[in-house]
Amino acid sequence: MLSVRGVKVTPIAFPDPPLLNSAGVHEPWALRAVLQVFAGDLVGLGETYGDIAHLSLLGAAAASLDGLDIYDLSGLSQRIAAAIGTVDAPDRHGLTGDSTAAKTLARVVSAFEVALLDLQGQAIGRPVHDLLGGKVRDRVPFSAYLFYKWAGHPGASPDAWGPALDPAGIVAQARSMIDRYGFESIKLKGGVFPPAEEIDAIRALRDAFPSLPLRLDPNAAWTPATSIKVAAETSGLLEYLEDPTGGLAGMAEVAALAPMPLATNMCVVAFADLPEAVRRGSVQIVLADHHYWGGLRASAELAAICRTWGLGVSMHSNSHLGISLAAMTHLAASTPFLTYAVDTHTPWQSGVDVVTAPLEISGGAATVPDTPGLGVTLDQDALARLHENWLHCGIRERDDTSYRQRFEPDYVKRRPRW
Amino acid sequence: MLSVRGVKVTPIAFPDPPLLNSAGVHEPWALRAVLQVFAGDLVGLGETYGDIAHLSLLGAAAASLDGLDIYDLSGLSQRIAAAIGTVDAPDRHGLTGDSTAAKTLARVVSAFEVALLDLQGQAIGRPVHDLLGGKVRDRVPFSAYLFYKWAGHPGASPDAWGPALDPAGIVAQARSMIDRYGFESIKLKGGVFPPAEEIDAIRALRDAFPSLPLRLDPNAAWTPATSIKVAAETSGLLEYLEDPTGGLAGMAEVAALAPMPLATNMCVVAFADLPEAVRRGSVQIVLADHHYWGGLRASAELAAICRTWGLGVSMHSNSHLGISLAAMTHLAASTPFLTYAVDTHTPWQSGVDVVTAPLEISGGAATVPDTPGLGVTLDQDALARLHENWLHCGIRERDDTSYRQRFEPDYVKRRPRW
Repeated sequence: MLSVRGVKVTPIAFPDPPLLNSAGVHEPWALRAVLQVFAGDLVGLGETYGDIAHLSLLGAAAASLDGLDIYDLSGLSQRIAAAIGTVDAPDRHGLTGDSTAAKTLARVVSAFEVALLDLQGQAIGRPVHDLLGGKVRDRVPFSAYLFYKWAGHPGASPDAWGPALDPAGIVAQARSMIDRYGFESIKLKGGVFPPAEEIDAIRALRDAFPSLPLRLDPNAAWTPATSIKVAAETSGLLEYLEDPTGGLAGMAEVAALAPMPLATNMCVVAFADLPEAVRRGSVQIVLADHHYWGGLRASAELAAICRTWGLGVSMHSNSHLGISLAAMTHLAASTPFLTYAVDTHTPWQSGVDVVTAPLEISGGAATVPDTPGLGVTLDQDALARLHENWLHCGIRERDDTSYRQRFEPDYVKRRPRW
Repeated sequence: MLSVRGVKVTPIAFPDPPLLNSAGVHEPWALRAVLQVFAGDLVGLGETYGDIAHLSLLGAAAASLDGLDIYDLSGLSQRIAAAIGTVDAPDRHGLTGDSTAAKTLARVVSAFEVALLDLQGQAIGRPVHDLLGGKVRDRVPFSAYLFYKWAGHPGASPDAWGPALDPAGIVAQARSMIDRYGFESIKLKGGVFPPAEEIDAIRALRDAFPSLPLRLDPNAAWTPATSIKVAAETSGLLEYLEDPTGGLAGMAEVAALAPMPLATNMCVVAFADLPEAVRRGSVQIVLADHHYWGGLRASAELAAICRTWGLGVSMHSNSHLGISLAAMTHLAASTPFLTYAVDTHTPWQSGVDVVTAPLEISGGAATVPDTPGLGVTLDQDALARLHENWLHCGIRERDDTSYRQRFEPDYVKRRPRW
């Protein structure tokens, strides 16, 4: 029996461009936490959020895992639930939906579950996707994830991506991203400018990339009425419209009239949301995200539910590094009805990573690793550097709104805004 | 990589008492098929139905598996789907619901999936429940599964159980079964006598065993109106009422008025049944059965769906031997929200088995095996004897109705009957 003999949680920070969204703008540093779970001579890796409240829960969880059998995923949940108690550590930005105690627990369990699956895979010499039922595809398609953005962080030089504040800027960003990664579908993070301007950007993308599926995600910046209007105006242009408005009732109102399917990673973010979402017909596509659904196995259960109810499955992304990219790729590889290309922030991480050889996206897809476990190795030097970043960056909690207010004092986060 | 290098499918028959149900009466021999899947020096075991049409599909499936990686459960389904094509092999008795092509495929895949999980577990030295997320309990509770029965098969001596054709007979059967196995809940297979007589049997059981939960399962022998009447008359007496009537609409009609929850293994028998069942509120408890839901992992997905929608989970049983008992026990051990004791036909198999050391039920529960794989070993001598039975028994398809008609020419299967 291989048991946990220690856990190391390392908070890290890596540079993040000034990407705009309905809550504000990304700060100069994105926070993550890297988990190393030790068992025998092996180390299992996990990557998760790095906000201070989450770090504190990760620490409490980590301290409860000594002696845990690496196969005992039930025991993992039980120990962590006992260690952290019933707490709710909300995201201030709210970009992945409301927070609840159950979701907080799932967010903590998840990172450890990935690390245990990595250990299991290494221990038996099999890739993680084999532990999830076996891969159904050798390549996982990802989508180009476009953001409106400033040229650079205020006070700093423009970054390599430059500004994207109008349709031409968005098309240029898409072209540069597609040239480099070969993406075959495109998602635009909206909710930043008035809907008419974002519709213009979608039209410009359609003209520039006539054959690529397009998605628009305003992160609930619109009322149901605005959403219905935008949906009508973008009829025939969008593969799906993601979270145009907030809440299951509002989404259902839009879904009843929208000509395209609605997707969500804001109103269906935990198993408890599913019955009402299904009853109301609020969404047609759920964006899975193992970081908050409770891990890779829980996400596979979500996919089974979606298949049963005829819902599509896509995958959500937050700023992440190579451990999460590998985990997402294994999950997508073993999900039979993954019906859409997966979101990723990989292009935005400026080549920085915490693993020695991150999975590469080319031709719009990553090749699924067949090496044991997740198939990625921690780069200890990089980890040390990224931890140094964290020590000095001064950011302890993601807060896109306050950061934007520093430069635009009149900015207020309002959802819906239009 | 450990790959399948051969499969052996052995049809077997073992003595079965004359148990009555809404389709007729059990024949003297129950049919099963034992699967041996060979990989390296290991053999993985599966147990499934033995009807001739199913055997033919098992044979076609078996011939398609050479070289299959034992971890490639996705490939397993794909190969079997290609090998058997779109076919529907209905059960003549219909005691586990209507048949469909998808359910036929799931029934074939299932037995092989169990064998591959057995191989995986043996290969890595871990019990199957570890491959399902880890056990959440060390003991799996089973229920006493009572049947109305004849004293013995016509023309043969009475069997050790003797007759049970009235409340006193049922109570005596319960007492004898509980004395031997220590069951702490009781299920009566009904649908045999007019409802008033079966209600009397339930009342007699309540008097004799005041503290044990009781269930009644007439296998859809009643109309919705009769079901509603019986439900009212058994208010406070039953833990659940199982399949009183047929179909999701009828069950919903009953569920709306019944004071106790309704369970089913007849109207929700595949994933495709779940959306309508949930929408209508047809059932409150689903009896999982890995033999037709598509395997142990698919059954775990079913349990996740039930948890999400607040449905209870119990487990269905057909006549089975020790491989299936072990598989059911591993599944139940790793199912967090298994809310009811599991059905089993173990007491009816007269001590016959196909494994060297079957799991024992005592104190109403089986201890979950922690040895590698399923934790049971095939008894080759017993297998040979049981195969001899099959060769000579003359039965090739379960047909409770025709068998009963041999002795009661006027008997007709009618559902609903009352």
